Amino acid sequence: RSNLKVFTLNSNPRLAEEIVEQIGTTMGLSSVKRFSDGEVQINIEESIRGCDVFLVQSTSDPANEHLMELLIMIDAMKRASAKTISVVLPYYGYARQDRKARAREPITAKLIANLLETAGATRILSLDLHATQIQGFFDIPVDQLQGEPILSRHFNEKGLEDLVIVSPDHGGVVRARRMADRLKAPIAIIDKRRPRPNVSEVMNIVGDVKGKTAIIIDDIIDTAGTITLAADALIESGANHVYACCTHPVLSGPAIERIENSRIEELVVTNSIVLPEEKNIDKVTQLSVGPLMAKAIINVFEQTSVSRLFN
Amino acid sequence: RSNLKVFTLNSNPRLAEEIVEQIGTTMGLSSVKRFSDGEVQINIEESIRGCDVFLVQSTSDPANEHLMELLIMIDAMKRASAKTISVVLPYYGYARQDRKARAREPITAKLIANLLETAGATRILSLDLHATQIQGFFDIPVDQLQGEPILSRHFNEKGLEDLVIVSPDHGGVVRARRMADRLKAPIAIIDKRRPRPNVSEVMNIVGDVKGKTAIIIDDIIDTAGTITLAADALIESGANHVYACCTHPVLSGPAIERIENSRIEELVVTNSIVLPEEKNIDKVTQLSVGPLMAKAIINVFEQTSVSRLFN
Ligand SMILES: Nc1ncnc2c1ncn2[C@@H]1O[C@H](COP(=O)(O)O)[C@@H](O)[C@H]1O
Ligand SMILES: Nc1ncnc2c1ncn2[C@@H]1O[C@H](COP(=O)(O)O)[C@@H](O)[C@H]1O
Repeated sequence: RSNLKVFTLNSNPRLAEEIVEQIGTTMGLSSVKRFSDGEVQINIEESIRGCDVFLVQSTSDPANEHLMELLIMIDAMKRASAKTISVVLPYYGYARQDRKARAREPITAKLIANLLETAGATRILSLDLHATQIQGFFDIPVDQLQGEPILSRHFNEKGLEDLVIVSPDHGGVVRARRMADRLKAPIAIIDKRRPRPNVSEVMNIVGDVKGKTAIIIDDIIDTAGTITLAADALIESGANHVYACCTHPVLSGPAIERIENSRIEELVVTNSIVLPEEKNIDKVTQLSVGPLMAKAIINVFEQTSVSRLFN
Repeated sequence: RSNLKVFTLNSNPRLAEEIVEQIGTTMGLSSVKRFSDGEVQINIEESIRGCDVFLVQSTSDPANEHLMELLIMIDAMKRASAKTISVVLPYYGYARQDRKARAREPITAKLIANLLETAGATRILSLDLHATQIQGFFDIPVDQLQGEPILSRHFNEKGLEDLVIVSPDHGGVVRARRMADRLKAPIAIIDKRRPRPNVSEVMNIVGDVKGKTAIIIDDIIDTAGTITLAADALIESGANHVYACCTHPVLSGPAIERIENSRIEELVVTNSIVLPEEKNIDKVTQLSVGPLMAKAIINVFEQTSVSRLFN
């Protein structure tokens, strides 16, 4: 596989190292630094002429910095005559700005897609895009991997009994359904509604959670407001235990404090986003998507369908 | 001029205010904030349907943040049915990465041009691009304004005598020549060379500076290493006084300290980049390009040639 080269940028170097190990290759040589005025300075330090290059970067916080590193590196790879440039995007920043919710808003998720193509990306390898429609924002192939099997395996190995899988909103039911099938459990749905304007939301639970161990599953947990309120609602409705899981631990602002102080016993996430080291995050278990991504890269390289990975 | 709308982002709001005042209009209403995870949140708060929009932003430090704000705002404007979107870029960040100086480097200045066009910019109004070739990186019209007349006027008004205009390198001679013509002075050129590898550069002065008042002119002053060494070399060669000027005061790292401790009596710059308020910058005089930019905007709006401004 001498034509397969994996490079990393600064968002997620440990995941990239894992991927490289799993594939059985070495990390592509590059330097990604800053000039005195803060501009990104990139140099690729080995030939990639004619190579199939895989570039690992999450556009997580700081999203703009990580994105610009990525675009500039793609530009350098294109000019260095790479044959293909596959962007491995464990976390796709700006994915929530995927439609005009109000007049005169941007659709930043589409802008990012255009920017990646303009820079020279030839393929995207993503993980749980916030909306599957984002695939259609691209005119290049987009593979989408799923975190749910990895999260499900963890709960399966714990040997929990009497489970109910909970979607925190109506948009996440398909994901909850998939986990429920795998764990042979029923589902429940949190049905948020605002009785009158300027009155706080009521969390109504559709489905039976009494006496059960609830697992809430979401794609992104950001400020953790919804998920911790959902945990309260589940306990109030008679659930014995509440676990939570998500693919992308954005965990901004008060998130970690909220989770530590909540009824959630464990929050299980993937390493699509690096967690802050300095924070006290006792309840969070982080699982690696390295093996999954490595397999996907090999499949792409060997022109095998990535969708075979979902068995 | 009800179809002319000027908007600003966060890099240079005071310059934008000046421009709006000069034009005799009001600032376009928009909100540019951050979500909890740091992603840019933009909303345009008045109709711009069918309007000629001018968007003022320097992609100065932090360049990536300012650039992403700009691209996302352009996207929002395009989707809000602006007729034209002219980007007023007093300072074009990444302009120095305009060629491959080494193998496998990016050409970020070209990437930025592509990104701006992809987002939806229909015209660029720039000021002293680091290389005039950057105009050719775009497939949309690029107007380039010049800071030199504003800098020259300042020195003219000081009534200095026995001047010599100094270019700090061979690339800047045309700019020095222009100032010299305007101030009716001769020019000199700093000829840097490295006698042997790993030996520090020697600054040789081509031209007569003895007994004269030297004005060094450059487009960008970044770390101020070259310019302060040039000042020493000029004094050593017999210059009585040394002034310096540039269009874009990047002034990163040790720049301000170096200038304050140097033989330079005054550094004259424009407000294409906002200077840090907290720093002690006694020697720096900042002149506004607001009136120049306002005139250029009116000329563009009225379809009059911007090049008429250079008289
Ligand atoms: N980074 C972000 N943090 C919080 N909200 C966001 C972010 N980006 C977009 N949004 C908003 O989230 C909403 C979409 O979220 P969702 O309904 O979960 O798809 C939109 O109204 C967006 O304006
Ligand atoms: N932000 C920056 N700060 C310092 N040097 C840079 C920067 N961007 C590009 N360069 C380098 O500056 C050189 C070009 O400068 P110049 O010769 O003045 O056009 C190139 O070799 C670039 O690698």
